[in-house]
Formats: sequence, C-alpha cells, structure tokens
Amino acid sequence: MKLATLKDGTRDGQLAIVARDLKTAVVADGIAATLQRALDDWAFLAPQLDELSRQLNEGRARRSFDFDPQRCMAPLPRAYQWVDGSAYVNHVELVRKARKAEMPAAFWDDPLMYQGGSDDFLGPCDDIVLRHEEWGLDFEAEVAVITGDVPMGATPDQAQQQIRLLTLVNDVSLRNLMPDELAKGFGFLQSKPATSFAPVALTPDELGDAWQESKLHLPLRSAWNGKLVGQPNAGVDMVFNFAQLIAHLCKTRHARAGTIVGSGTVSNQDAKKGYSCIAEKRCLETIADGKPSMPFMGFGDTIRIDMLDADGKSLFGAIEQRVCAAS
Amino acid sequence: MKLATLKDGTRDGQLAIVARDLKTAVVADGIAATLQRALDDWAFLAPQLDELSRQLNEGRARRSFDFDPQRCMAPLPRAYQWVDGSAYVNHVELVRKARKAEMPAAFWDDPLMYQGGSDDFLGPCDDIVLRHEEWGLDFEAEVAVITGDVPMGATPDQAQQQIRLLTLVNDVSLRNLMPDELAKGFGFLQSKPATSFAPVALTPDELGDAWQESKLHLPLRSAWNGKLVGQPNAGVDMVFNFAQLIAHLCKTRHARAGTIVGSGTVSNQDAKKGYSCIAEKRCLETIADGKPSMPFMGFGDTIRIDMLDADGKSLFGAIEQRVCAAS
Repeated sequence: MKLATLKDGTRDGQLAIVARDLKTAVVADGIAATLQRALDDWAFLAPQLDELSRQLNEGRARRSFDFDPQRCMAPLPRAYQWVDGSAYVNHVELVRKARKAEMPAAFWDDPLMYQGGSDDFLGPCDDIVLRHEEWGLDFEAEVAVITGDVPMGATPDQAQQQIRLLTLVNDVSLRNLMPDELAKGFGFLQSKPATSFAPVALTPDELGDAWQESKLHLPLRSAWNGKLVGQPNAGVDMVFNFAQLIAHLCKTRHARAGTIVGSGTVSNQDAKKGYSCIAEKRCLETIADGKPSMPFMGFGDTIRIDMLDADGKSLFGAIEQRVCAAS
Repeated sequence: MKLATLKDGTRDGQLAIVARDLKTAVVADGIAATLQRALDDWAFLAPQLDELSRQLNEGRARRSFDFDPQRCMAPLPRAYQWVDGSAYVNHVELVRKARKAEMPAAFWDDPLMYQGGSDDFLGPCDDIVLRHEEWGLDFEAEVAVITGDVPMGATPDQAQQQIRLLTLVNDVSLRNLMPDELAKGFGFLQSKPATSFAPVALTPDELGDAWQESKLHLPLRSAWNGKLVGQPNAGVDMVFNFAQLIAHLCKTRHARAGTIVGSGTVSNQDAKKGYSCIAEKRCLETIADGKPSMPFMGFGDTIRIDMLDADGKSLFGAIEQRVCAAS
C-alpha cells in the first residue's frame, strides 16, 4: 500500500491511503489519525490500512478524492529519529579524491552514518527557505526506509524484518558551512537544514522485483531547473544495504518505530548516470580541471526528484521544490 | 510548575503534575495526555496545568497520590529533537590537553553541539543496558532545557523566550567507541546510546534567583557507586548560555516544540568541584601522570545525579541508574 500525510493545519497532518496510480486517495483517520500512530501499532493497524488500500485500488472506497501532492506534508512531518548513511561509497571516494584525501579502507566495511534533525521535515512541494545564498545550498537525492521497533544488537536479517515503508528524500545540505562543522568533529548541525520527503511512503511489496536484498533496484531521477542531471540506479554500487545500515545503528541501542534511515546520496561508478547532488559534479570537475565550476543552487532554482517503475509510472510521486529567500 | 511522565504501558506515558516538594502528584490527562501535547499547544494548556499545580501545592487537588520516581519515564519518553552543546569549554579544553591536541580558539566563540538520538530515552531509574563492558561506559551529568517553537534565525533573546522547561540529563557515552567515530567526522552514533532524564521537568519560575541569564546557578551533584564525585556549579564557567545554544541551533532551520537542548557535561575550572563524567577525571590523571587510572563504569555500577535548592531539597528528583549486562 501507499501512504501519505495530508496538510490539515496540525503538526502531524492526516493519514491517507493513496491509490497505486497516485490518482486518488482516501483519508484513513478511522484507522489511524497519523502515520506515527500506525507505525506505533503496525501489526494491528497495517492489515486494516491494507484492506482500505485494496478498496481504493478497486474503486470501491467511499469518499475517495483526487490525490494532490501539493497538499502533502512529509509522510512523517516530524519523526523521533532520522539517520542517514553513506551507502554509495563511490560518492564518498569522489569527495575525498577531490580534496586529495585518502579514503580509509574501513569505509568499505564500516558504514558512515550521521544523526540528523527530525523535528521539522518539509513536504514534497514545500519551498526550501534559505537565509543566505552563499551558504551553498545543494540537493541530495536518496532512498530511505522507515522502520518498526528494532532491538539493540539486531542482525541485518532481523533488521530487514522491521522495514515497514520506503520513500524518497531530498537531504538538503549547506555545503559551505560543512568544512567548519566537519573540522569540529561533532557531525552536521547547521549544515543540514530541514530535510524533504516524497509525497508517498510505500510498503516493500509495492515494489515487486525492484526490492531485493534490502536494496531498491531502480533509477533515481534528479532534475535541476528542469534538466535531468542524474539517474543512477539505487540498487547499483550500494555497498551497505538498508538491513546493514539499520543493524549498524542498533549496535548499542534500540531504534524505535518511525525511525527513518537514509541511503546517502545515490551514486553509481558509471559517471554517465549523472549526479544526485551538485557536490559530486563539482568533485568530478575538481578531479578533471583542478577546480569546480558548477555553482550550488540559487534563489529561484528548482529541484525535482522522482523514481519511475518499469512502466514509467511514478512510484512515490515527485519531490518538487523551489529555493526561496527567507523573508 | 513541575511536570513528570508516568509509565502506563504506552510509548509516551501519562502527563502528571508533581508538587514542589516532590511528595505528591496528580494526573493531568484531563488537560493534556502527554507532555509533547502540552508543548505543542503551550500558550493554551500551560495556564490550565499551572492552575492544577497550584491546587496540588495547596493540598486541594483531587485524586492526588504519592509521587514515585520509580514510576517515571523521561519527561519526554521520545522527542523530535535532542541536541547537546559543550557549553563548559573547560571540559573540552581538558580533553584536548590530555591528548596533547591544541584547542582551536574558535571553540570559545562558536558552540560545539551534536545532534543526538531522541527516539528512545531512559527514565530516571531505568537500567542502563550495555552489551559489552569494554565499550567504556561513562555518565555525563548535564542540565537541559526543553523549548517551544523557535524560528530560523532567532536571536538569543528570542530563543530565551521559548525556554519552557528545564531538567537534568545523564548523557550516557561509550568512550571506547568514540575515537573511531570522531575520526570519521560525522559525529556520534554508536557511541551515544539511550540518554536518561530526571523524573521532573520544571518551568524556570520554579528556580527563582537560581535561573539567571539563561543559566542555572546551582551545583549539579554526581555520586558514582554512592560516592559524591562531582558538584560543579552549573552557572559557573558556562561559556554559552542556553539562549545562545538555541540560537546556534536555529541559524539555518527552525527548532520545533519539544526540542531538548543539553548544556554538555557540567565542569568548573576549580578542580576541587570534582567531575561530572569519568572521562574528565581520566584527563586530569593523564595530564598529571601521563596515563589515566580510573576505569569506566562496570556492570552493577550505579550513578546518581541530583540538584538541590538552597534549602537542600531536590529540585528535579534524582537520576538513579544501574549498569546492567544485556541478556
């Protein structure tokens, strides 16, 4: 099934079921008021949501309406946990190469992951509000999973069983604030402002064969100012799959229901697949020419992130955002 | 007023008002089911909670009962944001000195702060469950504030207006996992397991003169295995006050209601005040003797963190935890 959260003036929005073709939706608040509520009691509520989804897809749901991504908040408008991996080590290697830094060999065995802010997510069509253009705003197109409760010490196999939903992410970054924060060693704080999410989160069974070995085997398409700049396959060159990322997180602690785990910027070794963040393009330029030439995003720029199924139909709906100056 | 969250089998517990002397309490679920709910609509709900608090303190509340910290969850058993500063730069300087690393001068002007996990907090009397003793478990005694909505770009004065509550924190750390995580540059993930909180969160007016200039001017007492090892004054040597820490967080993004901001390990330059984490003691040993001799916490060890008012009465109730092996 496909789930979305509709704007209704509240902090957590209203849970809705969305039809497979993203054309219609139906409010699910008779079952669970919010997505977090559904995740908190998934075993009991998911079968009821699934039945409503079946009715909607068969055209039998009462009070269905046209689905409008503009009305969507992030599937979880605020979450109790957002952690982001760097599973496409190719991306990490390029960044390091551009600044002539050796990549530690351990990066191929031990996932890099940061704890992100999760109190204030952006919906798929919300503006990215920026105070200063010179902070170097960049998009990062990613896949993410949303989990149930995962106990401390869970193995990747156990973690995989707790993957409830998948969605797409724009992990908005402020590149020019990063060097100083990374030098402090305490991770990202100011350089990672509010993160954006696709209109829809879906259960793995919606993906058929594209979901295998805890990876999503489809191209992730990023269009910057209307121009397709990246379409790497999210199932290729993913060194750590989602089950491994979750297990890494849970080495010393539990992860509770509603934890969102990102893949990191999707990146293929095949440079013809383009890029899922401007920083990667600038790294390639630096390696080739000694310096980057592509600027970061400016006020008025747009970013569109989408993933299509084998028939060319959008799976999650698109993230479509514009960069705006803070008033 | 003083607020607590009681265990009731749910993920978010039940909001209660606690009497000023911590002897009695009354359930507040007629006003707000949970503390997060109260914070979400503070302007409307806080006056109602305040009235109930007045009734309780005057012995007029119906259905009051004996307050038992053992029944408490963390005031916010899970939160949408937990960030922790390092406002006592003395502590940071000692850590650096012990490993013979220069401390960048910017650390005196630019707060160090990390984004922590907030999906699974421990209550004041919950066991700290540890898989491996050799990970080097340490306590960190801190003060924290809980905020309302703070807009992006807020000044320290604006941030101060949004401080709703204060509480105490045990920012549990796994010291021997830190060097590898810090070397990766992405902050703490595995080395910061579940954080623990005092039984009570209170509004600043409960502190009288002890709350000044966005600092809490009272000693924070840490007793390890029954022995008092630290009593530094939280108002002394705090280089960045809470208003400044919140403003730092909000430079590039909003902070939403229920954000918890920690002070970092409380530490005074006067070494006679003792230590609020074992790591600091080990740093002093290293500076004096070339190597640390104090071990980290082992299975069965206890830690008690408390703060007394001028009359010697506990303000927040005590954090009292035991370290246990994971089964």
